[in-house]
This record gives sequence, C-alpha cells and structure tokens, in this order.
Amino acid sequence: MVNKKSEMYSCWLSHREIKNSNYKEYIENIVISYKSQIIDSALWELKKAFEQIDNTKVEQKIYEKEEGIEHEKYIKLEKSNDKSLVSEGYKIKHKILLGKKQVIIISAKDDNGILYGVFALLRLLEQNKQIDGIEIIDNPKKNIRLVNHWDNIDGTVERGFAGSSILFESCRNKDIMKEVMDAIGGIAATNNALRKAFNDDYNVASDLDRINDYARMLSSVGINGVIINNTNVHAAETYLIDNKINILKTISKIFDKWGIKTYLSINFAAPITLGDLQTSDPLDENVIQWWKRKTEHVYSVIPNLGGFMVKADSEGRPGPFTYGRNHAEGANMLASALSPYGGILIWRCFVYNCRQDWRDHTIDRAKAAYDCFTPLDGQFLDNVYLQIKNGPMDFQVKEPISPLFGALDNTNKLMEFQITQEYTGQQKHVCFLIPWWKEILSAQTYANDTDSLVAERITGIAAIVNVGNDENWTGHFLAQANLYGYGRLAWNSDITSEQIVEEWINLTFGENSLVIKNVQEILMNSWKTYEKYTSPLGIGWMVAPGHHYGPDVDGYEFSPWGTYHRADCKGIGIDRTLETGTGYSGQYNEPLKSLYNNLETCPDELLLFFHHASYKHVLKSGKSVIQHIYDTHFEGYEEVKEFISKWEELEGKIDIYIYEQTLERLKIQLDSAENWKDQINTYFHRMSGIEDEKKRRIY
Amino acid sequence: MVNKKSEMYSCWLSHREIKNSNYKEYIENIVISYKSQIIDSALWELKKAFEQIDNTKVEQKIYEKEEGIEHEKYIKLEKSNDKSLVSEGYKIKHKILLGKKQVIIISAKDDNGILYGVFALLRLLEQNKQIDGIEIIDNPKKNIRLVNHWDNIDGTVERGFAGSSILFESCRNKDIMKEVMDAIGGIAATNNALRKAFNDDYNVASDLDRINDYARMLSSVGINGVIINNTNVHAAETYLIDNKINILKTISKIFDKWGIKTYLSINFAAPITLGDLQTSDPLDENVIQWWKRKTEHVYSVIPNLGGFMVKADSEGRPGPFTYGRNHAEGANMLASALSPYGGILIWRCFVYNCRQDWRDHTIDRAKAAYDCFTPLDGQFLDNVYLQIKNGPMDFQVKEPISPLFGALDNTNKLMEFQITQEYTGQQKHVCFLIPWWKEILSAQTYANDTDSLVAERITGIAAIVNVGNDENWTGHFLAQANLYGYGRLAWNSDITSEQIVEEWINLTFGENSLVIKNVQEILMNSWKTYEKYTSPLGIGWMVAPGHHYGPDVDGYEFSPWGTYHRADCKGIGIDRTLETGTGYSGQYNEPLKSLYNNLETCPDELLLFFHHASYKHVLKSGKSVIQHIYDTHFEGYEEVKEFISKWEELEGKIDIYIYEQTLERLKIQLDSAENWKDQINTYFHRMSGIEDEKKRRIY
Repeated sequence: MVNKKSEMYSCWLSHREIKNSNYKEYIENIVISYKSQIIDSALWELKKAFEQIDNTKVEQKIYEKEEGIEHEKYIKLEKSNDKSLVSEGYKIKHKILLGKKQVIIISAKDDNGILYGVFALLRLLEQNKQIDGIEIIDNPKKNIRLVNHWDNIDGTVERGFAGSSILFESCRNKDIMKEVMDAIGGIAATNNALRKAFNDDYNVASDLDRINDYARMLSSVGINGVIINNTNVHAAETYLIDNKINILKTISKIFDKWGIKTYLSINFAAPITLGDLQTSDPLDENVIQWWKRKTEHVYSVIPNLGGFMVKADSEGRPGPFTYGRNHAEGANMLASALSPYGGILIWRCFVYNCRQDWRDHTIDRAKAAYDCFTPLDGQFLDNVYLQIKNGPMDFQVKEPISPLFGALDNTNKLMEFQITQEYTGQQKHVCFLIPWWKEILSAQTYANDTDSLVAERITGIAAIVNVGNDENWTGHFLAQANLYGYGRLAWNSDITSEQIVEEWINLTFGENSLVIKNVQEILMNSWKTYEKYTSPLGIGWMVAPGHHYGPDVDGYEFSPWGTYHRADCKGIGIDRTLETGTGYSGQYNEPLKSLYNNLETCPDELLLFFHHASYKHVLKSGKSVIQHIYDTHFEGYEEVKEFISKWEELEGKIDIYIYEQTLERLKIQLDSAENWKDQINTYFHRMSGIEDEKKRRIY
Repeated sequence: MVNKKSEMYSCWLSHREIKNSNYKEYIENIVISYKSQIIDSALWELKKAFEQIDNTKVEQKIYEKEEGIEHEKYIKLEKSNDKSLVSEGYKIKHKILLGKKQVIIISAKDDNGILYGVFALLRLLEQNKQIDGIEIIDNPKKNIRLVNHWDNIDGTVERGFAGSSILFESCRNKDIMKEVMDAIGGIAATNNALRKAFNDDYNVASDLDRINDYARMLSSVGINGVIINNTNVHAAETYLIDNKINILKTISKIFDKWGIKTYLSINFAAPITLGDLQTSDPLDENVIQWWKRKTEHVYSVIPNLGGFMVKADSEGRPGPFTYGRNHAEGANMLASALSPYGGILIWRCFVYNCRQDWRDHTIDRAKAAYDCFTPLDGQFLDNVYLQIKNGPMDFQVKEPISPLFGALDNTNKLMEFQITQEYTGQQKHVCFLIPWWKEILSAQTYANDTDSLVAERITGIAAIVNVGNDENWTGHFLAQANLYGYGRLAWNSDITSEQIVEEWINLTFGENSLVIKNVQEILMNSWKTYEKYTSPLGIGWMVAPGHHYGPDVDGYEFSPWGTYHRADCKGIGIDRTLETGTGYSGQYNEPLKSLYNNLETCPDELLLFFHHASYKHVLKSGKSVIQHIYDTHFEGYEEVKEFISKWEELEGKIDIYIYEQTLERLKIQLDSAENWKDQINTYFHRMSGIEDEKKRRIY
C-alpha cells in the first residue's frame, strides 16, 4: 500500500519548512475577488502548506476585498493587466501598508499565472528566502510545456520504470474481466448485474486522488499540458475517442483543476480500427468528414482538450505514407478538424525505417527525420507542432542535436526530451539529466547564418514522463529531480542546473548543508558518470535489445533498427561524413557541418557518432580511442562507488525510507556499472588486441 | 479450428494405403479370448485402419475362439509364454491353415505387446510389405520409453513451438477467471453458481478427444510413459498432487487406454508450497511422513501412476542442497515413498551453477553434473533413475556425450533427448535429429576399459516432446518425423536413420518415389545443414538469449549461464584441457580423455568445445578454423536453398496444405540461415581481420 503521508510521496511539496515559519497569518487571510476551480486549487495549496504534515488546523478566511480585514498580514490574489506580464506569468510583490499591515500580492493575467505565483511564493517560503519588500516578475519563456505519458489503458507503461500507470491503474482488472466475460459469454450473459459492473467505462476508484496529487505536482513546476496515453496507440486506446471517452473525461476534469490541458494520442488509422471506414487516407473526403465529426464529439465532451498527438509512419504505426501522402497532408487534415476548438496537433518527427538491413551501410537512420520533414517546411498549418527528439537517434546518453532544429524556419517546433530513463539507467541508476538538456537547449544551430540557440528555435517543449504508481512516483527517489527540473527548465531554460539542484534539494530534504552538498555532487556528476561507464565518444546503442537495460555491445549490431557501432579489429564508429560516409553531417548548418565532418575538428564526445576511427586515433584529450574507452569505464565505475560513500554519509540526516531505498538502488547501479565496465572493456580488448596502458584487470 | 480429418492431423497413422489393400477380411475377423481396455484400443485401431479416411463401414466381428469362424482370413491376438518374447515385445506370424484358411497371429506376454504388435502389423500393411508366411519377433531394448512434457497448467508450453498445451488447454480460461474472481472477491461472492463453474477442477472439454488421439500416436511408436507437466514445477502445478489431482486423473485415464503410464513432475518444496511444513529437508521425519501420505493419496486416485520426476537444485528449483543434503538423500526419500506402489523416481542431472561469473574462467558448467553425481554412484535406491541430458551442456546442435554415461556403473541411467527444437530451429527450421541421436547412442564410453556403447549403459530413454495444439501437432510438419523416429529409436536404437526416414515417409506420404527421394534427402541432411549455418566446430551458444532463436554471437558471452565462446582477435574456443584449461576432458575414460585433451587428436567437430584455437589453426580437413567458419556458413545457406528446390518439386504430389505450410517454413528457414551466415561471418571477419580465401561477400 502506498503511504500518501510519506516523505517520498510528497516529493518537493512537503512544505515542511513553511510549517515552522512565521507566515501562517498570511496564509490564513486571502483576498480574492472572484472564484474559479483553479483559484480554488491555489487557495487549497496555501492552506495545505501548513496542514499537510501534522494536523495543524488552518482557518483560512477568504475576503472579496481588502477593506475590513482585521488581520495584519494577508495575501492578495488578483488578475492584472500589468504590461510586464505575459500569459501564465506572475508577479509577487510584498508591500507594507499604512499602519502595521503587510500584504503579499500575487498578480497575473490569468488563473494559471496566479496558481503558479502561489507555488512560487511557497517555494520562496520553503527556502526561507527574504520576502520583505520583494517584487518578482516571472514569465514563462514557452507557452507549451508538456509531459507525455506512454501509458496504456491496461495499466502498463511503455518504458515505465516506476510501477504501473497512475492514470489507468483501475482499468486493469476490468480489462481482464472483460476478456473473460467475452470468452465465457454464455454463462456471463445470464448475469447482467455482474456484466454491467465490469462494463462501466471507468471504475472510479481511490486512485483519482492520486491523479489529483500528480496534477498538483506538475502544476507546481509550471507544466500546462499532459498527453495521457501512449504515443503507440493500440486498438484499446483508439476507443478513447469513442466509447471509452468517459475515461478521458474523468482524467481531464482533474487536470483542469490545476490549469493543465489534457491531450490525447490518437491512432491515425482510427477510422479503420473503429470499423467505420476502409481507409485513413487524409485526402479522402469521407476520412476528412469522419475526423471532423469525431473531433466535434470529443470537444463536446471535453471542451478544454488541448489537442491530439500523432506518431505516424513510425515503428509500425500507420500514417499518410500508406496512401502516398506526405506528412503535411496527414497532419493538416487533423489540424483542420481541431482548429474550430482551438486545439493543436502535435506530430512526431520520429520517422525512420526500422526494418533496415544492417548489411547496407548507406542507409542512415540519423538522416531520416531531416529528409522527411525539411522539404515540407512551411506547408504545415499554424496549429500543427512538430515534436522533435533532442537528437537524431533516440534519447541516447549522448547524441548531437537534431539538425531539424537548425532547419524548419517556417514550422512550429517542439523539443522532445525523455525524462523516463529508458537508455539512461531506467531509474535504477541515478542520472540527473538537467545538465544534458541545458546543453541541448543552449546549443547553437547557426540557422540562417545567425547565432540562434535551440531554445530560441522552439515554440514549446515536451518530455516523456517518468512517473508510475510506486510510492515515490519515480522508482528511484533521486529521479524526482529530473521531473522537477524538467518543469523548471520548460518554464525558463535560462535557469542553471545548479539552481535547479539547489532548489530541489532544499524543497525535498530541507537545509542540512551536508545533505545539500552531497546530493548536489551526486546529481551534478551523475549524467557524465553514466556516460563514462556505458557509451564512449557518442557511439551509443551498446545496450541489451528490447528492454534497453545493461550492456550488450552487439545487441543492436545485426538488427534492423539502424543502430550500429561497426567495430572491427582495427576501429569503431559510423562514418557519417560527406566524402566517404552517409553524408549525415551535411544536414547541419556551417560551421557545424565542417566541424563534425572533419575527423580532426569533430569534438571527442561525438567522434564515433560521425567517424569510423582507429583504436589508435589520438583524441584531443591526448588519449587514444582505445585508452579512452578503458579509462572512462574504470573511472565511471569508481565514481559510482564515490556516490555510495557520499550517500552513506547522509544516514540519519534524511528520511530513513528514502535513505535505504536509494542506497539499495545505488548498489544495483554499482553492480551494473561493474558489468558495463567489464563487458565493454573485455569486448574491445578482445577485439583490438591492444593492452590497457595502466595494466588494469580486463577479462 | 483444427480439422481432425486433415492429413496433417493424422500424421503417420492415416492408414491411407491399407484402405486400398486386400486385408479387409483379416481386420474384420478377430479372435481374442479376453477383454481389457488396451485390447479394446487394439481392436479399435484395426477397425479404424479401414474406416478413417472416408466412411467405409467395417463390420468387425470378435470371436472368443478360432473354432467356428466361417471367414477365410482372420487375425488372432493372444497372450503367450513364448520364451523369445520379453515384456512388451510381440510376435507377428502369418500361417496358412488347413483348407483355405489363413491367420495372422499377434502374440505377446502382455496387453502392451499385443497393442504394439497391432501397430507393427498395420505399419507393414501400410508399406505393402509381404505378409505371407512371415514370422517377426520384435522386443523393445528398453523398458522405459518416455516423453516429457514441459507443459504448464495455464496452457503454455516451455520451449514449445507448436501452439499451446494439448494437455492443459482447457485450463487456461479457468485460471484467468480465478485470478479475476480472487481480485474482485466482493462481487463474485454473491454469485455462487458462477464461482462454482470456474472452480471445478477440470473443464472436461472436447480436447480430451485430442489427448486420446495423441496417446494413440505415442503408443503407435512404442512410448509407454508420459510425464505430463513441466519439469519446472510452479506453484500452480504443485497442486496436481493436491486439490488439482482430478486433472491428473482425467489425463491418466486416457493414457491408460493406450498402455501409457502417466508420470508427474513434482516440486521438491511441495510441503512448503502447499503450506503444510516449514521445511523440505529430505531427512526430516515430518517431511518423510508428508511425502508418504501424499504419495499414498496420489496412488489411491491414480493406482497406475508411473512415478515422479524431479528437477532439483537447478536453475532456481529447490532441492536437497538447501538443507545441506546430497542428491541421493533427496532422491531416496521420494523413492521410498513411491516404492510400495511400484512407482519410480526420475531425478534429473541437469545441475549446475546458473549464476556463475563470466569473468571466472575456472568454473565450467560442462563439469557440473559429473562432479555432483559420480561421488554418489551406488547410493541411489533401485527405483531411482537419473535422467541425463545427452551432452554436458544443453541440447546444442553438437556436443560431446555426457561423461556420466561412461561413469555411474551402479546407478540406473536414463538418456534425455530433446525432440522439441529449442536450439535446433524451433520447428521453423527442418532439423531431423535421428542421425544425431543415433550417433550419441552408438558412441563409445569405454566404461571399465571395455567396449561399451552409450545405448548399453542406459536402462531407459526420455525426451522432451515437440507437440502442441497446432493442427499438425508439431508446428513444422516435417518435425513429426522426429517424434516418430524418437519412438522407434527408444524401442530399439539399432534401427538405422535411413530405415526410420523411409518408414515415416511411406506411412505419411505414401509411395511416390520422388516424394520419398526428396523428403529423404532433406531430412537426412538437415541436421548437418543446421549445424553448418549456425554453430561451428562444437562451440554452441551463439544464439539470442532467452528465446534461443536466431544468431547472437555474444548473446551468452557475458551472461551468468556458463555458456561462452571466448573469441578474441586471435582465436576462439574454451580450453577444457587438463593442463591449461578447466580439466573437463579428464571426466572421460581413456582413450577419449587423451583424444579430446589433445589439440591434434581432438575431432574437428568438437575442437572448439575442448580447445581455444587460433583462427589460423589447421583442421584435419586441411582448412583453417576461420576458413571453416566461412565455408560452412556459405554452404549451409546454399543447402537450405537446395531443400526448397527439392520441396518445390513435390507440388501436386502431396497434400496441398502440408506442401504450402512446409514451403512457408522452409522460406523462413532460408531467411534465418542467411542471417546466421552473414552475422557469424561478419562477426568473425571483423574480429579476426582475416579475409575469406574465396573472396565472397562478408559485410
């Protein structure tokens, strides 16, 4: 059973420190001149700040106007036309009034802004920041700040490492039941009552509270949209726009309360899957009308829906290619259906040939998305957003940025990150991804020959989320920092990794300086450490196929997935140069094109992504490729040991359950890092026949 | 839906040719002086021989005595004390009596012998063999001729490649239902009738007919025992000796009719699993009494049970090691419980450390069974039978014979083969295993310094069967030949592979000479072909982990399973010599020990099993190791192409469904063989850096 009072459950929202502070009077007296469900959430959050850990009773008084408040301190929430504010931004201002009165004013253009202001205020209080006389204006840099769920209606989560789905948990038993009921129709038919009990669309169970807790968590870091179901839409989820729409409705009502729009992944072939048409051709008039009617129906039930997401022509998903149409034609048809309701269409760019022949060195998966989408630039409707993975492959620990960010000048682009640690340790390993995302967002694209950072080229940001029904939400407790940090970055990518870490530790663990220092060290180093003991020099993919956990150098080498290392007894790496390779480097703008294309100028960390290099090739670091492989693997392993020492120093200083559970995971990580080290080093030692300069043990 | 009238369903028992022959009169007149259910089966089979394909009506008359028979031809079945017969053996004699009368006499010591005689007679008739004046005596060489099912009660089959279990098929829905019922207890409890319907022990459905058809098939080739459930006994199957015993009873009654004893795989920890005791210590008096009572109960329900099988201390199964006891102590405790009822205990020797460290080259899985069991020789009770896999590893396409066959002079030994093609193409590839098993059974052990073949060292034979609920029983139609051949070999391993193939083709396809020639060529070459494109020189294991289908050179290289190739840029193979290796070769008797231990004398086909050899090492064939790898992989692939040509010549000459289904599998095999060829060759080309002498394309 999940203990919803536990520290691991409450995440960065325990408000532990606030409860001990002097701000109770503020929180008990609130001025707000109107009502809405989001305002209700804001008020509830202020109250909860004091109530949550023990049973302190907070008598919150709501005033419509400031006049007549007898208390000395109060908070005022108000809508404002302040020119310095943008949509969803907020201003927090502390004012000393005539007499002894003091007020904290949170103003914004809209309800979401006020709610975000409340969360921001509580963050300040929790960190014991000085409030007197402050005036803060904080506007989001992007309007679209999404998390994507890869949750299936049967309660499973694709690439989920923290338990079952929190959104569809209660569907599970029902679906099994239905299968049985179908199988034994004869008997069950005589029992209508029983049959009915299982056929109700959604078993409204206690976990709706948990969805609410989750929505609150997302809102606290500024997430304003959630795609509730897996991008791979199976037959069952296709019915979410049909007879299962009540599931969607139930969930979206909860998210609405926290200013979060619900989005739906849809099946491009839904007209066929639902049995209505023989085609899904986006230019077929029947298909166009079908989607118009369907969308109208969906919006009649969920007027506040954010829109649809589509993964088309990718990894077995249907798409416009089936009908000889291009992706603009496919996307625009759906976008037109959404347009009357203000809905947007998110279209994923993860399009490549996943049945390629490993024998053919001329095909390059890295090139696929650019080749597919750049010719269509400018052809997409205004409410279409292309969601582009950060790199050209698939969320490896290190990749170059996708060349699409430096192209597609006339198309809405969303960044796609992966919070769930599919290739980065599956929440068994600590791997704090904020520094990696920071690096990506601040990378130069040189689009149109100007300085032009990735962050400036996108109109929004999305990420596949890492939560499940584990008590601590994220499997590895420290993985909460990735969710927290993602939200903060999505709001404003100028925040530094250090600031995010510090905030998260303060809000989560409080102010013990050793805790801050050690957790900071672990988190800030963890991504590079993971890279060291897994994948050298940008090569990626040396991972067990299917589940993607643990080393398997040749796991994908002879597969149809387009993910190779091409190691032989002389060297390793994929030649993606213009002259002798696949030409992928040509998809970048200058000077990146030349930088990557040239073995001598290509950064070490991406060398093997762009070049097939000899094991004896000397890196800019002065080491040979093979020695770099050996050294980083030994180092990475040692660094995990160091993490454990740092963590063990925290015994007694943090919640015992968090301490022990995390220690257990760190030990699993150490075992795994040892495996990585020994398998990778052994493989390349056997393959190259070259000895480690330092004569360490290789098997 | 399975068509039980189809040719693929009727296997080698279509009796197609008999129907057209002149023997109807014999079959319509049978003399038999007593009744039994096995005799009933024999009579039914004789009748069926004419009736089965179309609706020919056979008026079978049964006479108690020969006197008074008016027909000229008849068959006489009789028990006999003939000294030339052993238990279950039979004699077939054709006699011309006074007047025009002719009789075929089938005599035997027991009912099984008579039934086997009937099947043998029908085989002769089906093949149009001359009957006049014949006198055949055929005694089985071994009394124990078993098939093992790795079937689970939920209907799945471990390593099954031909559909779901035919034994537990109807349990499946029930078990899902039970899970749901447990999960939703509250609602279901109000509906006792429904609950009851799902809790009945065994849903006696139409598939009992199929079990009967299966029993008949096994009996037709002399199988006299069947272990009905998976050697890995999970919690659910543990209840087969408890509240699920009716399942066992239902199944065993069917097998009884065909002279086949039912055996049960049991869980060594059953006293704990069933909640009765805290221990399974075989020397604990409570445990001893528990098994005595349990066994008594089982035999009170199934008096004819053959006995129990146990997989102990292996791959996670519990066993005597848990209590510091040895395997003789574990086995004897159970054997004592079985002894009063004439039951036997089959104890598997598949004991090894499946959590070994790949880094440690001193541990050798191949040595484990010998090390565990030889010190216990002579300590096992008389009704204990050690079941030993043919090789020291696990059913690879090529292994040396297990050294246990040359040891254990004072212990009952059973040979364990694997008909189900786990590592030999999973019934997607044609791989006729009889020549391989013949080679094993006729191998020299040199036990006690004498000529002593494996076949002479064993007291019985067992094999994991390859059937499931596919219409053709075995997934690949040609895999029926392995089941047929296994039964024939188990009866008498002196039969040649050629004779078995010829019999099977005749009985299955009839007498078309091209069919006989081509199918013969395909089958007789298929094992060697499979070896060629998969695993060179006895190395084994270069297979995808888990499911074991398709190539993955390093799939097991860094695993804990003890299954390595140790390839590096200079050479490949496991050093199992006495001087520099694991010493495994020392487990053989001389001259095998020296033969295997010496790089120069070790047979090519096992070279890499015993030695780590340079790629440049020259084989007895005159080729280098690397050239052998390249050549065999190219050849194997070409040979599969040849199989397809041979098969395509049979279009129109055999049943169309069998033709097409088999052709489809052959094409799958060709694809897979190409994968094997290219991946293995590429891997070793990259690793060794040595070019193919013939300059063929390697990727």
